[in-house]
Amino acid sequence: MMNISFVDIIEFIGTFAFAISGIRLASAKQFDLFGAYVVGLVTAIGGGTIRDLLLDVTPFWMNNPIYLIITALALLWVMIFSKYLVRMNNTFFLFDAIGLALFAVVGIQKTLDAGFPLWVATIMGTFTGAAGGVLRDVFINEIPLVFRKDIYAMACVMGGFAYWVCGRLGTDPVMTQIICGISVFLTRILAVKFHVSLPILKGEDEE
Amino acid sequence: MMNISFVDIIEFIGTFAFAISGIRLASAKQFDLFGAYVVGLVTAIGGGTIRDLLLDVTPFWMNNPIYLIITALALLWVMIFSKYLVRMNNTFFLFDAIGLALFAVVGIQKTLDAGFPLWVATIMGTFTGAAGGVLRDVFINEIPLVFRKDIYAMACVMGGFAYWVCGRLGTDPVMTQIICGISVFLTRILAVKFHVSLPILKGEDEE
Amino acid sequence: MMNISFVDIIEFIGTFAFAISGIRLASAKQFDLFGAYVVGLVTAIGGGTIRDLLLDVTPFWMNNPIYLIITALALLWVMIFSKYLVRMNNTFFLFDAIGLALFAVVGIQKTLDAGFPLWVATIMGTFTGAAGGVLRDVFINEIPLVFRKDIYAMACVMGGFAYWVCGRLGTDPVMTQIICGISVFLTRILAVKFHVSLPILKGEDEE
Repeated sequence: MMNISFVDIIEFIGTFAFAISGIRLASAKQFDLFGAYVVGLVTAIGGGTIRDLLLDVTPFWMNNPIYLIITALALLWVMIFSKYLVRMNNTFFLFDAIGLALFAVVGIQKTLDAGFPLWVATIMGTFTGAAGGVLRDVFINEIPLVFRKDIYAMACVMGGFAYWVCGRLGTDPVMTQIICGISVFLTRILAVKFHVSLPILKGEDEE
Repeated sequence: MMNISFVDIIEFIGTFAFAISGIRLASAKQFDLFGAYVVGLVTAIGGGTIRDLLLDVTPFWMNNPIYLIITALALLWVMIFSKYLVRMNNTFFLFDAIGLALFAVVGIQKTLDAGFPLWVATIMGTFTGAAGGVLRDVFINEIPLVFRKDIYAMACVMGGFAYWVCGRLGTDPVMTQIICGISVFLTRILAVKFHVSLPILKGEDEE
Repeated sequence: MMNISFVDIIEFIGTFAFAISGIRLASAKQFDLFGAYVVGLVTAIGGGTIRDLLLDVTPFWMNNPIYLIITALALLWVMIFSKYLVRMNNTFFLFDAIGLALFAVVGIQKTLDAGFPLWVATIMGTFTGAAGGVLRDVFINEIPLVFRKDIYAMACVMGGFAYWVCGRLGTDPVMTQIICGISVFLTRILAVKFHVSLPILKGEDEE
């Protein structure tokens, strides 16, 4: 019925990992099944939806129900394996980093294809990768994690930088996307492994 | 000047009920008059606005100031009758359920008319009915009620299901809309009356 | 390279002042540099972005990187002068009021140019001026200030009223915009100077 490419499979894994992260946080807040599903869905498709609204194209998930189905599978997964999920944290971290990398590539490429310059595409790649998590944290009434912890959204910016370098070197499009994805993935993985984080802005004790 | 149909009147009542719910929650948080008005407006038109942005059509309230006027009337109502509002809770609950049903029908029908399949329309119906309340709760800095309590957004999904059944049976469009609205309304009313709610997703004590 | 008009310079100052306000609040919440930058950016461009999405035009900042650059300068400014910022509060208040006035004029004019009536334009002017601050407060997980304190968003509504009066009097377009901006600015300044605020809606002790 559909041709499913390697990139599709990676994207589905990323969607699954993002949905799991939303559903787990929702469950920690005692959301009901519907609420957990919505938060999982928003985490998985929120970033790409904002990107598509800004680019003025039909949001990607309105063309294919697969993202809703994957989120439903993620909900089932959390319900069945909730006791073992903590042990799987390393696996999910890896999936999440893969998803982040691929979402960034998709966001950058889609924006370039729409005729915008690379700096806009980099922002859109960052939205695609990180804005779903921001919406998730707003819905569960927490300060967005992405603003406070680790290198996460910044990894997507590195992906934009990789595009720029590849453009300078004349790398072909497919290779550029692969290098971009690997840059995002490695930045994320290495930042966590070596506890690299951005400095905290020193406040003025306003409160 | 304008032809006002029966559906319009129902829609105005729903808008009024939704606005009241926003204004009352804002007043419990000590918002000023302007803030209360904005929260009431967002509750009433937020869901339909998100739907129209996703469908890429002009948000419905930009074509007709009636929704702003109704929200202003709702604000006046709360200011004048604030002492008696608690006693009217049953009436507002009924109005809110009517509004939910009609908003769901409008959202589903508008999306089908735009050429999208029923599963997209069901999501849009749910947005139209429930997303305004989510925005309201984000603005007053609470975890959205809809994710935690009762059958609310799920009732809109039942409306989509009713559309699907009617489609199978070859019911004519007007009757389909009526059956859809009644399905949403009854699901909502019966769920509250018999204390039916979705199970809470068991957390992992992550915190 | 670019022609920079007087209005552009005012707009840049407003963007700078709005970004500073976001960055300072983010720093009080211990955001990292990236988070502070994002909150600053959202405060500066969020309102105009929502306006452009509703008007179905390309968000203004996607055509010109200057807003991202100004936000980066604002971040630098806060990092370097954080100890002296409190002393500059009066200056920032003035810049913020100038920004509010100009953002309101830009929002109103852009909406009228798109063919919408003045009441829609007034709402869009208010979004342009005040919605960025609402998004900022949602991201730092506070109840939006604009709903509770001072005359702020209401000043933009005064700008719409000024447009209406000028339209009645047949004032020419440029003069109308100037009068609108001055109305917003003076409303804001005088409201703070004389501690004018809207009454708080009396709650029902629902909680």
